[in-house]
Amino acid sequence: MIASSTFTRHQEIAWRGGHTRSTSRFVAEETGIALTYNGSTHAVMMGTPADLEDFGVGFSLTEAIVEHPGEIRDIDLVPNELGIEVRMWLDGDRAASLAARRRAISGPVGCGLCGIESLEQARRAPSRVADRGATFSGEDLLTAIRALSPLQILYQQTRAVHAAALWHPCLGIAAIREDVGRHNALDKLAGAITREGRSAGDGVVLLTSRVSVEMVQKAAMIGVPVVVAVSAPTALAIQTADEAGITLVAIARDDGYGVFTHPHRVLLPEDAASRTDL
Amino acid sequence: MIASSTFTRHQEIAWRGGHTRSTSRFVAEETGIALTYNGSTHAVMMGTPADLEDFGVGFSLTEAIVEHPGEIRDIDLVPNELGIEVRMWLDGDRAASLAARRRAISGPVGCGLCGIESLEQARRAPSRVADRGATFSGEDLLTAIRALSPLQILYQQTRAVHAAALWHPCLGIAAIREDVGRHNALDKLAGAITREGRSAGDGVVLLTSRVSVEMVQKAAMIGVPVVVAVSAPTALAIQTADEAGITLVAIARDDGYGVFTHPHRVLLPEDAASRTDL
Repeated sequence: MIASSTFTRHQEIAWRGGHTRSTSRFVAEETGIALTYNGSTHAVMMGTPADLEDFGVGFSLTEAIVEHPGEIRDIDLVPNELGIEVRMWLDGDRAASLAARRRAISGPVGCGLCGIESLEQARRAPSRVADRGATFSGEDLLTAIRALSPLQILYQQTRAVHAAALWHPCLGIAAIREDVGRHNALDKLAGAITREGRSAGDGVVLLTSRVSVEMVQKAAMIGVPVVVAVSAPTALAIQTADEAGITLVAIARDDGYGVFTHPHRVLLPEDAASRTDL
Repeated sequence: MIASSTFTRHQEIAWRGGHTRSTSRFVAEETGIALTYNGSTHAVMMGTPADLEDFGVGFSLTEAIVEHPGEIRDIDLVPNELGIEVRMWLDGDRAASLAARRRAISGPVGCGLCGIESLEQARRAPSRVADRGATFSGEDLLTAIRALSPLQILYQQTRAVHAAALWHPCLGIAAIREDVGRHNALDKLAGAITREGRSAGDGVVLLTSRVSVEMVQKAAMIGVPVVVAVSAPTALAIQTADEAGITLVAIARDDGYGVFTHPHRVLLPEDAASRTDL
Protein backbone atom coordinates (compact mmCIF):
# COMPACT_ATOMS: atom_id res chain seq x y z
CA MET A 1 0.00 0.00 0.00
CA ILE A 2 2.77 2.39 0.96
CA ALA A 3 4.73 1.81 -2.19
CA SER A 4 1.79 2.18 -4.57
CA SER A 5 1.31 5.97 -4.44
CA THR A 6 4.55 7.33 -5.83
CA PHE A 7 2.73 9.76 -8.11
CA THR A 8 -0.70 11.36 -8.40
CA ARG A 9 -2.63 13.29 -11.02
CA HIS A 10 -2.95 17.06 -10.45
CA GLN A 11 -4.90 19.75 -12.27
CA GLU A 12 -2.85 22.17 -14.35
CA ILE A 13 -3.63 25.21 -16.49
CA ALA A 14 -1.11 24.84 -19.28
CA TRP A 15 -0.15 27.89 -21.30
CA ARG A 16 2.07 26.81 -24.20
CA GLY A 17 2.62 28.36 -27.59
CA GLY A 18 0.09 31.10 -26.75
CA HIS A 19 -2.75 28.67 -26.00
CA THR A 20 -4.42 28.05 -22.64
CA ARG A 21 -5.61 24.57 -21.80
CA SER A 22 -7.07 23.04 -18.65
CA THR A 23 -5.38 19.71 -18.30
CA SER A 24 -3.79 17.44 -15.71
CA ARG A 25 -0.40 15.93 -15.11
CA PHE A 26 1.20 13.21 -13.00
CA VAL A 27 3.38 14.66 -10.25
CA ALA A 28 5.70 12.83 -7.88
CA GLU A 29 4.55 12.19 -4.33
CA GLU A 30 6.85 13.50 -1.60
CA THR A 31 6.48 12.55 2.03
CA GLY A 32 8.29 12.91 5.34
CA ILE A 33 10.28 9.78 6.16
CA ALA A 34 11.58 9.39 9.72
CA LEU A 35 14.41 6.91 10.17
CA THR A 36 14.43 5.66 13.75
CA TYR A 37 16.77 3.24 15.55
CA ASN A 38 15.52 1.45 18.62
CA GLY A 39 12.75 4.03 19.05
CA SER A 40 14.73 7.23 18.61
CA THR A 41 14.78 9.35 15.44
CA HIS A 42 18.10 9.63 13.65
CA ALA A 43 17.02 11.64 10.59
CA VAL A 44 13.92 12.92 8.78
CA MET A 45 14.04 13.23 5.01
CA MET A 46 11.51 14.23 2.40
CA GLY A 47 11.36 11.42 -0.15
CA THR A 48 9.40 9.16 -2.46
CA PRO A 49 7.22 6.69 -0.49
CA ALA A 50 8.58 3.50 -2.07
CA ASP A 51 11.35 0.97 -1.42
CA LEU A 52 11.58 2.12 2.18
CA GLU A 53 13.21 -1.05 3.55
CA ASP A 54 15.93 -0.49 0.94
CA PHE A 55 16.15 3.13 2.09
CA GLY A 56 16.51 2.21 5.75
CA VAL A 57 19.19 -0.41 5.08
CA GLY A 58 21.04 1.73 2.53
CA PHE A 59 21.07 4.86 4.70
CA SER A 60 22.32 2.80 7.64
CA LEU A 61 25.20 1.49 5.50
CA THR A 62 26.21 4.73 3.74
CA GLU A 63 26.06 6.69 7.01
CA ALA A 64 28.16 4.03 8.77
CA ILE A 65 25.51 3.18 11.35
CA VAL A 66 25.88 -0.52 10.49
CA GLU A 67 28.47 -2.45 8.49
CA HIS A 68 26.20 -5.26 7.31
CA PRO A 69 22.44 -5.39 6.73
CA GLY A 70 22.23 -8.32 9.16
CA GLU A 71 23.00 -5.95 12.02
CA ILE A 72 19.52 -4.50 11.53
CA ARG A 73 17.42 -7.04 13.40
CA ASP A 74 14.06 -5.78 12.17
CA ILE A 75 12.48 -3.02 10.05
CA ASP A 76 8.87 -1.89 10.45
CA LEU A 77 7.20 0.64 8.16
CA VAL A 78 4.64 2.66 10.12
CA PRO A 79 2.68 5.22 8.10
CA ASN A 80 0.76 8.02 9.80
CA GLU A 81 -0.95 11.19 8.57
CA LEU A 82 2.34 13.13 8.61
CA GLY A 83 4.54 10.66 6.80
CA ILE A 84 6.12 7.29 7.31
CA GLU A 85 8.33 5.97 10.07
CA VAL A 86 11.01 3.48 9.09
CA ARG A 87 11.54 1.84 12.48
CA MET A 88 14.78 -0.09 12.65
CA TRP A 89 15.93 -2.24 15.52
CA LEU A 90 19.66 -2.77 16.03
CA ASP A 91 21.29 -5.53 17.99
CA GLY A 92 22.90 -4.78 21.32
CA ASP A 93 26.43 -3.92 20.19
CA ARG A 94 25.39 -1.65 17.34
CA ALA A 95 22.71 0.02 19.44
CA ALA A 96 25.26 0.74 22.15
CA SER A 97 27.80 2.18 19.69
CA LEU A 98 25.15 4.38 18.05
CA ALA A 99 24.10 5.69 21.45
CA ALA A 100 27.74 6.39 22.33
CA ARG A 101 28.26 8.19 19.00
CA ARG A 102 25.19 10.31 19.68
CA ARG A 103 26.40 11.31 23.10
CA ALA A 104 29.79 12.27 21.59
CA ILE A 105 28.54 14.11 18.51
CA SER A 106 24.84 14.94 18.75
CA GLY A 107 24.71 15.37 14.94
CA PRO A 108 25.74 18.53 13.10
CA VAL A 109 22.34 20.22 13.41
CA GLY A 110 21.20 22.33 16.34
CA CYS A 111 23.66 20.51 18.55
CA GLY A 112 25.53 23.12 20.51
CA LEU A 113 28.87 22.30 18.89
CA CYS A 114 30.92 25.26 17.73
CA GLY A 115 31.37 25.82 13.99
CA ILE A 116 34.77 24.14 13.65
CA GLU A 117 33.64 20.97 15.46
CA SER A 118 30.54 20.81 13.25
CA LEU A 119 32.55 21.25 10.03
CA GLU A 120 34.83 18.40 11.15
CA GLN A 121 31.79 16.14 11.51
CA ALA A 122 30.47 17.10 8.06
CA ARG A 123 33.79 16.63 6.25
CA ARG A 124 34.37 12.98 7.05
CA ALA A 125 37.25 11.23 5.26
CA PRO A 126 35.94 8.84 2.61
CA SER A 127 36.42 5.09 2.75
CA ARG A 128 39.06 3.89 0.29
CA VAL A 129 37.48 1.64 -2.34
CA ALA A 130 39.25 -1.69 -2.87
CA ASP A 131 40.70 -2.00 -6.38
CA ARG A 132 39.59 -5.41 -7.64
CA GLY A 133 40.94 -4.83 -11.13
CA ALA A 134 37.63 -4.10 -12.86
CA THR A 135 38.00 -2.14 -16.09
CA PHE A 136 35.46 -0.96 -18.64
CA SER A 137 35.74 0.02 -22.27
CA GLY A 138 34.54 3.39 -23.46
CA GLU A 139 31.62 1.66 -25.17
CA ASP A 140 30.74 -0.28 -21.98
CA LEU A 141 29.98 2.94 -20.18
CA LEU A 142 27.97 4.32 -23.12
CA THR A 143 25.93 1.11 -23.09
CA ALA A 144 25.33 1.59 -19.38
CA ILE A 145 24.21 5.20 -19.81
CA ARG A 146 21.86 4.31 -22.64
CA ALA A 147 20.31 1.49 -20.60
CA LEU A 148 19.25 3.84 -17.82
CA SER A 149 16.47 6.01 -19.19
CA PRO A 150 14.10 3.25 -20.41
CA LEU A 151 14.05 1.97 -16.79
CA GLN A 152 13.28 5.31 -15.12
CA ILE A 153 9.60 4.49 -14.76
CA LEU A 154 8.66 7.16 -12.21
CA TYR A 155 10.66 9.81 -14.07
CA GLN A 156 8.78 9.03 -17.26
CA GLN A 157 5.53 9.81 -15.43
CA THR A 158 6.63 12.84 -13.44
CA ARG A 159 9.89 14.33 -14.80
CA ALA A 160 10.72 15.17 -11.19
CA VAL A 161 12.74 12.31 -9.71
CA HIS A 162 16.32 11.12 -9.76
CA ALA A 163 17.55 7.59 -10.36
CA ALA A 164 20.54 5.60 -9.12
CA ALA A 165 21.36 2.25 -10.73
CA LEU A 166 23.96 -0.51 -10.60
CA TRP A 167 25.26 -1.72 -13.96
CA HIS A 168 27.39 -4.80 -14.67
CA PRO A 169 28.91 -5.67 -18.07
CA CYS A 170 27.22 -9.09 -18.04
CA LEU A 171 23.97 -8.26 -16.27
CA GLY A 172 23.20 -4.78 -17.58
CA ILE A 173 21.16 -2.76 -15.06
CA ALA A 174 21.15 -5.08 -12.04
CA ALA A 175 19.14 -2.70 -9.81
CA ILE A 176 17.57 0.76 -10.11
CA ARG A 177 15.86 3.00 -7.57
CA GLU A 178 14.14 6.38 -8.00
CA ASP A 179 13.40 9.18 -5.52
CA VAL A 180 12.59 12.89 -5.48
CA GLY A 181 15.87 13.26 -3.56
CA ARG A 182 19.11 12.22 -5.26
CA HIS A 183 20.74 11.13 -1.98
CA ASN A 184 17.71 9.00 -1.20
CA ALA A 185 17.86 7.32 -4.63
CA LEU A 186 21.47 6.32 -3.97
CA ASP A 187 20.69 5.12 -0.44
CA LYS A 188 17.80 3.02 -1.77
CA LEU A 189 20.10 1.51 -4.38
CA ALA A 190 22.72 0.76 -1.72
CA GLY A 191 20.06 -1.01 0.33
CA ALA A 192 18.69 -2.94 -2.65
CA ILE A 193 22.14 -4.18 -3.66
CA THR A 194 23.14 -5.39 -0.24
CA ARG A 195 19.75 -6.89 0.62
CA GLU A 196 20.00 -8.97 -2.57
CA GLY A 197 23.49 -10.09 -1.52
CA ARG A 198 25.09 -8.40 -4.52
CA SER A 199 28.45 -6.67 -4.49
CA ALA A 200 28.92 -3.26 -6.05
CA GLY A 201 32.67 -3.91 -6.19
CA ASP A 202 32.91 -4.86 -9.87
CA GLY A 203 30.10 -2.70 -11.20
CA VAL A 204 29.27 0.86 -12.12
CA VAL A 205 26.87 3.14 -10.27
CA LEU A 206 24.87 5.38 -12.60
CA LEU A 207 23.42 8.66 -11.30
CA THR A 208 21.05 10.98 -13.15
CA SER A 209 22.02 13.87 -10.90
CA ARG A 210 24.87 16.24 -10.30
CA VAL A 211 27.69 14.85 -8.18
CA SER A 212 28.21 16.64 -4.89
CA VAL A 213 30.53 15.42 -2.17
CA GLU A 214 27.92 13.41 -0.24
CA MET A 215 27.15 11.31 -3.33
CA VAL A 216 30.82 10.29 -3.56
CA GLN A 217 31.03 9.62 0.19
CA LYS A 218 27.99 7.33 -0.03
CA ALA A 219 29.35 5.54 -3.13
CA ALA A 220 32.64 4.95 -1.28
CA MET A 221 30.79 3.38 1.65
CA ILE A 222 29.37 0.66 -0.61
CA GLY A 223 32.68 0.06 -2.39
CA VAL A 224 31.74 1.14 -5.92
CA PRO A 225 34.84 1.58 -8.09
CA VAL A 226 33.20 3.63 -10.87
CA VAL A 227 30.53 6.34 -10.63
CA VAL A 228 28.97 7.65 -13.85
CA ALA A 229 26.76 10.75 -13.56
CA VAL A 230 24.65 12.49 -16.15
CA SER A 231 25.39 15.93 -14.73
CA ALA A 232 28.52 17.74 -13.59
CA PRO A 233 30.61 17.18 -10.45
CA THR A 234 31.66 19.78 -7.90
CA ALA A 235 35.33 20.41 -7.15
CA LEU A 236 34.97 18.80 -3.71
CA ALA A 237 33.31 15.74 -5.24
CA ILE A 238 36.29 15.34 -7.60
CA GLN A 239 38.75 15.72 -4.70
CA THR A 240 36.82 13.20 -2.60
CA ALA A 241 36.58 10.67 -5.47
CA ASP A 242 40.33 11.02 -5.91
CA GLU A 243 40.91 10.33 -2.19
CA ALA A 244 38.46 7.40 -2.20
CA GLY A 245 40.07 5.74 -5.25
CA ILE A 246 36.83 6.07 -7.24
CA THR A 247 36.80 6.60 -11.01
CA LEU A 248 34.47 9.58 -11.45
CA VAL A 249 32.83 9.88 -14.88
CA ALA A 250 30.41 12.77 -15.40
CA ILE A 251 28.53 14.90 -17.92
CA ALA A 252 27.56 11.58 -19.48
CA ARG A 253 25.53 11.86 -22.66
CA ASP A 254 24.56 9.36 -25.34
CA ASP A 255 27.73 10.21 -27.31
CA GLY A 256 30.32 10.40 -24.54
CA TYR A 257 31.47 11.68 -21.16
CA GLY A 258 34.36 13.08 -19.17
CA VAL A 259 36.64 11.12 -16.83
CA PHE A 260 37.78 13.19 -13.83
CA THR A 261 39.64 10.79 -11.51
CA HIS A 262 41.44 7.41 -11.62
CA PRO A 263 41.10 6.93 -15.38
CA HIS A 264 42.90 3.56 -15.40
CA ARG A 265 39.54 1.76 -15.11
CA VAL A 266 38.20 3.26 -18.38
CA LEU A 267 39.93 1.89 -21.46
CA LEU A 268 39.64 4.61 -24.07
CA PRO A 269 41.32 4.75 -27.48
CA GLU A 270 44.34 7.03 -27.09
CA ASP A 271 43.77 8.93 -30.29
CA ALA A 272 44.50 12.43 -29.12
CA ALA A 273 46.47 13.05 -25.96
CA SER A 274 48.21 10.95 -23.36
CA ARG A 275 45.85 9.48 -20.77
CA THR A 276 48.46 9.79 -18.05
CA ASP A 277 47.94 13.56 -17.83
CA LEU A 278 45.24 13.34 -15.20
CA MET B 1 38.68 36.44 -0.87
CA ILE B 2 35.99 34.00 0.21
CA ALA B 3 33.62 34.91 -2.58
CA SER B 4 36.21 34.82 -5.36
CA SER B 5 36.68 31.05 -5.70
CA THR B 6 33.26 29.81 -6.74
CA PHE B 7 34.73 27.63 -9.48
CA THR B 8 38.08 26.09 -10.41
CA ARG B 9 39.60 24.44 -13.46
CA HIS B 10 39.96 20.64 -13.33
CA GLN B 11 41.63 18.16 -15.67
CA GLU B 12 39.29 15.94 -17.67
CA ILE B 13 39.73 13.14 -20.18
CA ALA B 14 36.86 13.76 -22.55
CA TRP B 15 35.57 10.92 -24.71
CA ARG B 16 32.97 12.26 -27.13
CA GLY B 17 31.94 11.06 -30.55
CA GLY B 18 34.53 8.27 -30.36
CA HIS B 19 37.47 10.64 -29.78
CA THR B 20 39.62 10.93 -26.65
CA ARG B 21 40.94 14.31 -25.63
CA SER B 22 42.85 15.55 -22.59
CA THR B 23 41.24 18.82 -21.67
CA SER B 24 40.06 20.79 -18.67
CA ARG B 25 36.79 22.20 -17.45
CA PHE B 26 35.53 24.69 -14.86
CA VAL B 27 33.75 22.95 -11.99
CA ALA B 28 31.80 24.53 -9.15
CA GLU B 29 33.43 24.83 -5.75
CA GLU B 30 31.54 23.24 -2.85
CA THR B 31 32.41 23.82 0.76
CA GLY B 32 31.08 23.12 4.23
CA ILE B 33 29.24 26.13 5.64
CA ALA B 34 28.45 26.15 9.37
CA LEU B 35 25.73 28.57 10.47
CA THR B 36 26.22 29.46 14.12
CA TYR B 37 24.17 31.66 16.45
CA ASN B 38 25.85 33.16 19.50
CA GLY B 39 28.64 30.57 19.27
CA SER B 40 26.58 27.41 18.80
CA THR B 41 26.07 25.60 15.47
CA HIS B 42 22.53 25.48 14.14
CA ALA B 43 23.18 23.80 10.76
CA VAL B 44 25.97 22.73 8.43
CA MET B 45 25.33 22.78 4.70
CA MET B 46 27.47 22.07 1.67
CA GLY B 47 27.27 25.12 -0.58
CA THR B 48 28.91 27.63 -2.90
CA PRO B 49 31.35 29.89 -1.04
CA ALA B 50 29.82 33.21 -2.08
CA ASP B 51 27.18 35.64 -0.79
CA LEU B 52 27.45 34.15 2.68
CA GLU B 53 26.06 37.15 4.56
CA ASP B 54 23.00 36.84 2.32
CA PHE B 55 22.91 33.13 3.12
CA GLY B 56 23.08 33.68 6.87
CA VAL B 57 20.36 36.33 6.86
CA GLY B 58 18.14 34.45 4.39
CA PHE B 59 18.39 31.12 6.22
CA SER B 60 17.58 32.87 9.50
CA LEU B 61 14.44 34.36 7.93
CA THR B 62 13.18 31.31 6.01
CA GLU B 63 13.77 29.03 9.00
CA ALA B 64 11.94 31.50 11.31
CA ILE B 65 14.94 32.10 13.56
CA VAL B 66 14.49 35.87 13.13
CA GLU B 67 11.64 37.96 11.71
CA HIS B 68 13.77 40.90 10.51
CA PRO B 69 17.41 41.10 9.43
CA GLY B 70 17.96 43.79 12.09
CA GLU B 71 17.59 41.13 14.77
CA ILE B 72 20.96 39.75 13.65
CA ARG B 73 23.32 42.11 15.46
CA ASP B 74 26.46 41.00 13.65
CA ILE B 75 27.71 38.48 11.06
CA ASP B 76 31.32 37.33 10.83
CA LEU B 77 32.64 35.04 8.09
CA VAL B 78 35.44 32.85 9.47
CA PRO B 79 37.08 30.52 6.94
CA ASN B 80 39.18 27.59 8.06
CA GLU B 81 40.68 24.56 6.29
CA LEU B 82 37.41 22.60 6.60
CA GLY B 83 35.00 25.23 5.38
CA ILE B 84 33.53 28.53 6.45
CA GLU B 85 31.75 29.53 9.60
CA VAL B 86 28.97 32.09 9.26
CA ARG B 87 28.93 33.38 12.84
CA MET B 88 25.77 35.29 13.66
CA TRP B 89 25.04 37.13 16.88
CA LEU B 90 21.44 37.58 17.93
CA ASP B 91 20.11 40.14 20.35
CA GLY B 92 18.98 39.06 23.81
CA ASP B 93 15.33 38.27 23.09
CA ARG B 94 15.94 36.30 19.90
CA ALA B 95 18.88 34.46 21.42
CA ALA B 96 16.73 33.45 24.38
CA SER B 97 13.85 32.27 22.18
CA LEU B 98 16.22 30.25 19.95
CA ALA B 99 17.73 28.62 23.04
CA ALA B 100 14.24 27.80 24.33
CA ARG B 101 13.25 26.36 20.95
CA ARG B 102 16.36 24.18 20.98
CA ARG B 103 15.60 22.86 24.41
CA ALA B 104 12.04 22.06 23.31
CA ILE B 105 12.81 20.52 19.93
CA SER B 106 16.50 19.65 19.56
CA GLY B 107 16.05 19.60 15.77
CA PRO B 108 14.77 16.61 13.80
CA VAL B 109 18.19 14.97 13.45
CA GLY B 110 19.74 12.60 15.96
CA CYS B 111 17.65 14.16 18.66
CA GLY B 112 16.06 11.34 20.60
CA LEU B 113 12.53 12.27 19.55
CA CYS B 114 10.32 9.44 18.39
CA GLY B 115 9.35 9.24 14.73
CA ILE B 116 5.95 10.92 15.02
CA GLU B 117 7.33 13.90 16.96
CA SER B 118 10.09 14.31 14.37
CA LEU B 119 7.66 14.17 11.44
CA GLU B 120 5.56 16.88 13.14
CA GLN B 121 8.63 19.11 13.29
CA ALA B 122 9.47 18.51 9.62
CA ARG B 123 5.95 19.15 8.34
CA ARG B 124 5.52 22.71 9.58
CA ALA B 125 2.43 24.60 8.39
CA PRO B 126 3.36 27.25 5.83
CA SER B 127 2.94 30.98 6.42
CA ARG B 128 -0.02 32.38 4.50
CA VAL B 129 1.20 34.89 1.90
CA ALA B 130 -0.62 38.26 1.96
CA ASP B 131 -2.54 38.91 -1.26
CA ARG B 132 -1.59 42.43 -2.31
CA GLY B 133 -3.42 42.19 -5.62
CA ALA B 134 -0.39 41.66 -7.86
CA THR B 135 -1.23 40.02 -11.18
CA PHE B 136 0.91 39.10 -14.15
CA SER B 137 0.11 38.50 -17.79
CA GLY B 138 1.10 35.27 -19.48
CA GLU B 139 3.74 37.20 -21.41
CA ASP B 140 5.10 38.81 -18.20
CA LEU B 141 6.08 35.43 -16.86
CA LEU B 142 7.63 34.35 -20.17
CA THR B 143 9.68 37.56 -20.11
CA ALA B 144 10.81 36.72 -16.57
CA ILE B 145 11.82 33.17 -17.51
CA ARG B 146 13.76 34.36 -20.56
CA ALA B 147 15.60 36.98 -18.47
CA LEU B 148 17.04 34.37 -16.13
CA SER B 149 19.58 32.36 -18.09
CA PRO B 150 21.78 35.25 -19.34
CA LEU B 151 22.35 36.17 -15.67
CA GLN B 152 23.32 32.67 -14.46
CA ILE B 153 27.01 33.49 -14.54
CA LEU B 154 28.29 30.59 -12.42
CA TYR B 155 26.03 28.13 -14.24
CA GLN B 156 27.45 29.21 -17.58
CA GLN B 157 30.93 28.29 -16.31
CA THR B 158 30.10 25.08 -14.49
CA ARG B 159 26.66 23.70 -15.52
CA ALA B 160 26.34 22.50 -11.92
CA VAL B 161 24.57 25.18 -9.89
CA HIS B 162 21.00 26.34 -9.33
CA ALA B 163 19.73 29.91 -9.39
CA ALA B 164 16.97 31.74 -7.55
CA ALA B 165 15.95 35.23 -8.70
CA LEU B 166 13.42 37.95 -7.91
CA TRP B 167 11.66 39.47 -10.92
CA HIS B 168 9.48 42.60 -11.03
CA PRO B 169 7.51 43.77 -14.07
CA CYS B 170 9.21 47.20 -13.94
CA LEU B 171 12.68 46.22 -12.73
CA GLY B 172 13.22 42.90 -14.49
CA ILE B 173 15.56 40.65 -12.49
CA ALA B 174 16.04 42.65 -9.28
CA ALA B 175 18.32 40.08 -7.61
CA ILE B 176 19.79 36.67 -8.46
CA ARG B 177 21.85 34.22 -6.42
CA GLU B 178 23.46 30.90 -7.43
CA ASP B 179 24.52 27.89 -5.37
CA VAL B 180 25.30 24.19 -5.81
CA GLY B 181 22.32 23.62 -3.49
CA ARG B 182 18.89 24.78 -4.60
CA HIS B 183 17.73 25.54 -1.04
CA ASN B 184 20.87 27.60 -0.49
CA ALA B 185 20.25 29.61 -3.68
CA LEU B 186 16.76 30.52 -2.42
CA ASP B 187 18.04 31.36 1.07
CA LYS B 188 20.74 33.61 -0.42
CA LEU B 189 18.10 35.35 -2.54
CA ALA B 190 15.89 35.83 0.54
CA GLY B 191 18.82 37.40 2.35
CA ALA B 192 19.79 39.62 -0.58
CA ILE B 193 16.23 40.92 -0.98
CA THR B 194 15.73 41.80 2.66
CA ARG B 195 19.21 43.21 3.18
CA GLU B 196 18.54 45.60 0.29
CA GLY B 197 15.25 46.60 1.90
CA ARG B 198 13.22 45.18 -0.99
CA SER B 199 9.89 43.44 -0.66
CA ALA B 200 9.16 40.21 -2.48
CA GLY B 201 5.45 40.84 -2.01
CA ASP B 202 4.71 42.15 -5.50
CA GLY B 203 7.29 40.14 -7.43
CA VAL B 204 7.94 36.70 -8.79
CA VAL B 205 10.56 34.26 -7.54
CA LEU B 206 12.18 32.27 -10.34
CA LEU B 207 13.80 28.90 -9.60
CA THR B 208 15.86 26.79 -11.98
CA SER B 209 15.19 23.68 -9.92
CA ARG B 210 12.45 21.23 -9.15
CA VAL B 211 9.96 22.40 -6.54
CA SER B 212 9.91 20.29 -3.39
CA VAL B 213 7.99 21.23 -0.26
CA GLU B 214 10.86 23.04 1.47
CA MET B 215 11.20 25.44 -1.48
CA VAL B 216 7.55 26.44 -1.09
CA GLN B 217 7.87 26.74 2.71
CA LYS B 218 10.86 29.07 2.28
CA ALA B 219 9.09 31.16 -0.39
CA ALA B 220 6.11 31.53 1.94
CA MET B 221 8.35 32.82 4.73
CA ILE B 222 9.46 35.75 2.57
CA GLY B 223 5.95 36.51 1.35
CA VAL B 224 6.37 35.79 -2.37
CA PRO B 225 2.97 35.55 -4.12
CA VAL B 226 4.20 33.80 -7.30
CA VAL B 227 6.86 31.09 -7.69
CA VAL B 228 7.93 30.11 -11.22
CA ALA B 229 10.14 27.03 -11.55
CA VAL B 230 11.86 25.55 -14.58
CA SER B 231 11.31 21.99 -13.42
CA ALA B 232 8.36 20.05 -12.03
CA PRO B 233 6.73 20.27 -8.59
CA THR B 234 6.04 17.43 -6.18
CA ALA B 235 2.50 16.70 -5.00
CA LEU B 236 3.35 17.97 -1.50
CA ALA B 237 4.80 21.18 -2.94
CA ILE B 238 1.52 21.78 -4.79
CA GLN B 239 -0.50 21.11 -1.64
CA THR B 240 1.73 23.42 0.41
CA ALA B 241 1.58 26.23 -2.19
CA ASP B 242 -2.21 25.91 -2.13
CA GLU B 243 -2.25 26.21 1.68
CA ALA B 244 0.20 29.15 1.61
CA GLY B 245 -1.81 31.08 -0.99
CA ILE B 246 1.11 30.98 -3.45
CA THR B 247 0.59 30.81 -7.20
CA LEU B 248 2.82 27.92 -8.27
CA VAL B 249 3.96 27.96 -11.90
CA ALA B 250 6.27 25.18 -13.06
CA ILE B 251 7.76 23.30 -16.01
CA ALA B 252 8.51 26.77 -17.35
CA ARG B 253 10.07 26.82 -20.80
CA ASP B 254 10.66 29.59 -23.33
CA ASP B 255 7.27 28.92 -24.90
CA GLY B 256 5.06 28.43 -21.84
CA TYR B 257 4.42 26.82 -18.48
CA GLY B 258 1.83 25.19 -16.24
CA VAL B 259 -0.10 26.89 -13.41
CA PHE B 260 -0.82 24.53 -10.51
CA THR B 261 -2.31 26.68 -7.72
CA HIS B 262 -4.09 30.04 -7.23
CA PRO B 263 -4.28 30.88 -10.96
CA HIS B 264 -6.03 34.24 -10.38
CA ARG B 265 -2.65 36.03 -10.39
CA VAL B 266 -1.80 34.88 -13.94
CA LEU B 267 -3.95 36.54 -16.60
CA LEU B 268 -4.06 34.08 -19.48
CA PRO B 269 -6.20 34.27 -22.61
CA GLU B 270 -9.17 31.96 -22.00
CA ASP B 271 -9.08 30.35 -25.42
CA ALA B 272 -9.70 26.76 -24.47
CA ALA B 273 -11.24 25.83 -21.16
CA SER B 274 -12.58 27.67 -18.17
CA ARG B 275 -9.86 28.87 -15.81
CA THR B 276 -12.04 28.24 -12.80
CA ASP B 277 -11.48 24.50 -13.02
CA LEU B 278 -8.39 24.52 -10.80
